[in-house]
Amino acid sequence: MLGNCLENVRKTVPLVHNITNYVTVNDVANVLLACGGSPIMSDEIDDVSDITSICGGLNINIGTLNKNTIAAMFAAGKKANELGHKVVLDPVGAGASALRTKTALDLADTIKFDAIRGNISEIKTLSAGSGSTKGVDADSADAVDDNNLDSAVAFVKQLAKERNTIIAVTGATDLVADAKTCYIIKNGRPEMSKITGTGCQLSGMLAAFLVANPENPLEAAAAAVCTMGLAGEIGFANMEKADGNSTYRNRIIDAIYNMTSEELNKGANYEIR
Amino acid sequence: MLGNCLENVRKTVPLVHNITNYVTVNDVANVLLACGGSPIMSDEIDDVSDITSICGGLNINIGTLNKNTIAAMFAAGKKANELGHKVVLDPVGAGASALRTKTALDLADTIKFDAIRGNISEIKTLSAGSGSTKGVDADSADAVDDNNLDSAVAFVKQLAKERNTIIAVTGATDLVADAKTCYIIKNGRPEMSKITGTGCQLSGMLAAFLVANPENPLEAAAAAVCTMGLAGEIGFANMEKADGNSTYRNRIIDAIYNMTSEELNKGANYEIR
Amino acid sequence: MLGNCLENVRKTVPLVHNITNYVTVNDVANVLLACGGSPIMSDEIDDVSDITSICGGLNINIGTLNKNTIAAMFAAGKKANELGHKVVLDPVGAGASALRTKTALDLADTIKFDAIRGNISEIKTLSAGSGSTKGVDADSADAVDDNNLDSAVAFVKQLAKERNTIIAVTGATDLVADAKTCYIIKNGRPEMSKITGTGCQLSGMLAAFLVANPENPLEAAAAAVCTMGLAGEIGFANMEKADGNSTYRNRIIDAIYNMTSEELNKGANYEIR
Repeated sequence: MLGNCLENVRKTVPLVHNITNYVTVNDVANVLLACGGSPIMSDEIDDVSDITSICGGLNINIGTLNKNTIAAMFAAGKKANELGHKVVLDPVGAGASALRTKTALDLADTIKFDAIRGNISEIKTLSAGSGSTKGVDADSADAVDDNNLDSAVAFVKQLAKERNTIIAVTGATDLVADAKTCYIIKNGRPEMSKITGTGCQLSGMLAAFLVANPENPLEAAAAAVCTMGLAGEIGFANMEKADGNSTYRNRIIDAIYNMTSEELNKGANYEIR
Repeated sequence: MLGNCLENVRKTVPLVHNITNYVTVNDVANVLLACGGSPIMSDEIDDVSDITSICGGLNINIGTLNKNTIAAMFAAGKKANELGHKVVLDPVGAGASALRTKTALDLADTIKFDAIRGNISEIKTLSAGSGSTKGVDADSADAVDDNNLDSAVAFVKQLAKERNTIIAVTGATDLVADAKTCYIIKNGRPEMSKITGTGCQLSGMLAAFLVANPENPLEAAAAAVCTMGLAGEIGFANMEKADGNSTYRNRIIDAIYNMTSEELNKGANYEIR
Repeated sequence: MLGNCLENVRKTVPLVHNITNYVTVNDVANVLLACGGSPIMSDEIDDVSDITSICGGLNINIGTLNKNTIAAMFAAGKKANELGHKVVLDPVGAGASALRTKTALDLADTIKFDAIRGNISEIKTLSAGSGSTKGVDADSADAVDDNNLDSAVAFVKQLAKERNTIIAVTGATDLVADAKTCYIIKNGRPEMSKITGTGCQLSGMLAAFLVANPENPLEAAAAAVCTMGLAGEIGFANMEKADGNSTYRNRIIDAIYNMTSEELNKGANYEIR
């Protein structure tokens, strides 16, 4: 059950090294604390090997990449692979610039990732080598919906097989797949797209869930995705008159902080194909 | 009417590229989402030309400038100018250090800005080539008030003419001017100065409003300034016992998220000279 | 009385230059505003000397150090020392990586600090030259409690003497000492460890309190520590159903914003040895 995956995070308090963008980094740290993990941030090449060595997981997010931090991403990823740590890639904006596309592809080719999480345009870019990401949001022409669900599921399974990793595509419908199995998840609220960084936050949590659940990585990844989506629903239900996207951000993190495994088991809305 | 300008942001969802400081960047992103725009952040010189090309506007803020990001500001500004995009400058701390003053002046001399927004000390520094900015706050000796309003209006019109741009000076009284016309705006609350980054947030919004309203840039700029000030008033009215500056920050962004064009038309407090 | 120290911050509005990490920087800025100070952030070596010159205090935090910002820390510290400004060191993660340990030690050997604030593992690392910091959290084996309080007090006094500075160790029990006197402070809530950055926030405040109270630095440092801990208690008392760590963060900063000197005098929970 997904709730066990959350409980294992709380029991083991996985330390996650984040090389992430400076836009949403504070929320990533607070979400990692909310779900029961522990965050550390380091992006200097002379620091990352030591830091990643004391962690259980590494979360690489290219949202505000620069030459120095790109080098640090490769160094940290290499060290984390040597140590058998869990490693997650969030290819923010792959498809939106040549540098982002190239960096995401090079990372995916060089580092063994346990999971790659992005919106559908970013993930398509990883598959095709180019894409049409609209800034940091998915191109609406790429959106996963009930009409193209079969082909989307086949696509993510195929990419998971080729890349030998878990692929997590998040949007109105989330797909979390390895080569054989796909969770189709319908938790979440459309208003979450009006907050910066729910994707970044999820990638951080994903790393913590993978570290805490080494026996069943796909279920752990699905549990992280359901936790974020369900928190979006709970946070929205807690909204009061005059609340907007800034307070919604707080309420989502708060909902993760307060979420029980029973609540997650009950609220998770998914099917497996 | 100013409300139309806000409505146009919501209808067209302008994508704004921000090269901005890491202190307030998360709030800038959430405010852009709140007003109806879409943010993307990128400050690596090898990334900014691609990123700014897919956007409609560029917001350059020197709040935590460094050698690498300064180079990226010039590259992005040049590309945005080539493409006819709207470009905003926020000269944070011009007058407080030689590097900030020089960078702000060089940017203003090299890039065509559609608007420059700062506090009165920063804007005076741009005019005089040196200044007395107190950190990132205006020197109180510079403050615009009813006693010096005529000369302040003349000053901003003159600078707008010389720089061929819109000048937005924000403080207790806000002035938004081109060479001929000045909006004198009295929205806002003094408590807004106890939150970091309302100025940075406004500069991001300003870019979005300019992109969405190409036919009437001065009105668009005034609408952005009134939106922020009015949100400060609404957010303050929503404060509860025990709330302080951190919650006030959220309530202001929330107020922008919930603001209707009617509300803006009704609440905007300005005269035109 | 400690309340006077807070009042002096509010009366004199000390401008504090922060070279700090990008994870918690926004909260540091808002906490400085909440307590009555004024923040400015700058980490470019060509900018820091000018910026620190117009400030009264400097807060150096190595939480996301890199080669460029390390150089800026030394330059700013040297200038601040020349000018007789108050300087605070927050050695985030000293003991967790060789670079962090070396940087913290080099800074402490090169710059005259008025106070050094960290968790017990970071402070032990400064004393021993190596340590066992668990990421950015203290190693539980190091924790200060009633069983080892006498030796912990002796340790911080000794280190304060050797380093000729105030040492502030924060955790469940806080110790704030110079060579002769130690404040043992029991304000705070365990839930504060579930928010990122309360330590970073405190270091920023500490700088402001030292600037505003040049006559009694130890009392000022103790006042800053009590202010943060008491705000943690007040913020927790204000928590409502469904609130979690994200809202708790806001409530703590709000509590500092609203704290009166009487409230601090009444709520401060300490003994002096």
